[in-house]
Amino acid sequence: MLYDSVDQAKNKSAGCPSQNQQARQQQQQEEMIKKSLSRIKHKIFVLSGKGGVGKSSVSANLAASLAEKGYMTGLMDVDLHGPSIAQMMGMKDLLDVSSDQKLLPKKIGDNLKVVSIQALMQDKDQAIIWRGPAKTGMIKQFIGSVEWGDLDFLVIDAPPGTGDEPISVVQTIPEAKAVIVTTPQEVALADVRKSISFCKTVKMETLGIVENMGAFKCPHCNEVIELFKSGGGSMTAKKEGLKFLGSIPFDTAVVKSGDEGVPVVIQDKNSTFSLAFKEVVDNITKQLI
Amino acid sequence: MLYDSVDQAKNKSAGCPSQNQQARQQQQQEEMIKKSLSRIKHKIFVLSGKGGVGKSSVSANLAASLAEKGYMTGLMDVDLHGPSIAQMMGMKDLLDVSSDQKLLPKKIGDNLKVVSIQALMQDKDQAIIWRGPAKTGMIKQFIGSVEWGDLDFLVIDAPPGTGDEPISVVQTIPEAKAVIVTTPQEVALADVRKSISFCKTVKMETLGIVENMGAFKCPHCNEVIELFKSGGGSMTAKKEGLKFLGSIPFDTAVVKSGDEGVPVVIQDKNSTFSLAFKEVVDNITKQLI
Repeated sequence: MLYDSVDQAKNKSAGCPSQNQQARQQQQQEEMIKKSLSRIKHKIFVLSGKGGVGKSSVSANLAASLAEKGYMTGLMDVDLHGPSIAQMMGMKDLLDVSSDQKLLPKKIGDNLKVVSIQALMQDKDQAIIWRGPAKTGMIKQFIGSVEWGDLDFLVIDAPPGTGDEPISVVQTIPEAKAVIVTTPQEVALADVRKSISFCKTVKMETLGIVENMGAFKCPHCNEVIELFKSGGGSMTAKKEGLKFLGSIPFDTAVVKSGDEGVPVVIQDKNSTFSLAFKEVVDNITKQLI
Repeated sequence: MLYDSVDQAKNKSAGCPSQNQQARQQQQQEEMIKKSLSRIKHKIFVLSGKGGVGKSSVSANLAASLAEKGYMTGLMDVDLHGPSIAQMMGMKDLLDVSSDQKLLPKKIGDNLKVVSIQALMQDKDQAIIWRGPAKTGMIKQFIGSVEWGDLDFLVIDAPPGTGDEPISVVQTIPEAKAVIVTTPQEVALADVRKSISFCKTVKMETLGIVENMGAFKCPHCNEVIELFKSGGGSMTAKKEGLKFLGSIPFDTAVVKSGDEGVPVVIQDKNSTFSLAFKEVVDNITKQLI
């Protein structure tokens, strides 16, 4: 079930085995997915309408916070064209494969396991130029063919928008619950309303909205600057009847820690980001546990 | 060729007409696309590896700058899941249809024509939950079934990544030339290298790299703050043997003008953004004209 390389997976998904064989393979995969999912208690799907709102930062820091609290946590990066998780978690090596041909997630500390397509590529700068069906195939493998083991939480980082990747996640993990990330300005909120419409249409329960990149304190004069305005996240949550999970200030420590490969909630526990993020994590876990 | 509504287009692309009829329709569409493209001198494809780097801001301001210089310019938003162009250009009404069933772009001033899926939707907050084939169909219609007329430039705003939308643009408009937008931090640069790999793989000529959201001046104390680090764009351009088109400082005027629906190069010509952007536009046009 596991392909040796991205190219093989690509060829495979473009190939035409006989219908019987294909049906058998599909059934086998569905069973493996079901088995994997049955060992994971809570699935949290982090999504956003707009790119660049810090969805991957929120995913990485949420997974790291849950692991730090002692929960067995998985982090799955399904942003196949722009995977940021490997960089943010400091993953440099390729992932290993078990004796029964399952992919072994990268273990970070005792409680965190991570999978990203970036950790399957020899040349990290190569573009994944794939149309939808190949991406859907890869996402299914990320669940069924990965040795996740027993997890309390699986955090899934999706690409922005409401296309093949989020549709595939929802169809494969219908019990996943959504955390929607936005920044405060109207251009971002317009897209977040589309994410909310997506969740409603596919009947996915929403845990709430996180507002990222809120107010910022000038490091020179300490005055507050609203880079992307403020308050838009809580306003939208209220209007749409959703929970507001918290506002996270803009913090250059996040940019730095993202580039250095250690989530800021671990690297700098007293940063303004980490303190605000703690509240977000509490607002998520208290709905689930 | 033009569908009355998004739903009709969706049904259409999922439908199964007889093979002959389908082939005839396809041929007809290819001819319409060819005819449309033959009347457009230069096609500029604005893309990015990562979302939220300001790709739509760059597209909107590039189109507005070219129109301001007197060039007949089109702006086509193919970010179907998260279309920002309509909001950024202050488009509130639905687009009209001509007597020969072609879609009429929204005219802004004398020289600018804009098309976005947002201007085809009654409910602006509805999500476009589409897989690849439906998106490819819509992009082809945006070229073949839109009354673009004679243009000097067509600026195409793509969603981030290297999936169905960019692939469809490249296959439909192989003569398009790329402008790649990034922000300075490593997490964004990792994705921009994928965009460069994409352009090389599909043999698309690249006009260069724009670094957006560079240094920022605190509005209170005037000290410079590097929100997303600095210099990463020019460094990457140098390393990859591409032209560096310029670095644009972070400017809250862009957020404000984006939300207000007037590109900042028009609304505030003396802003730090507008002054830096002028250089970028010059670096693009001098390669083409």
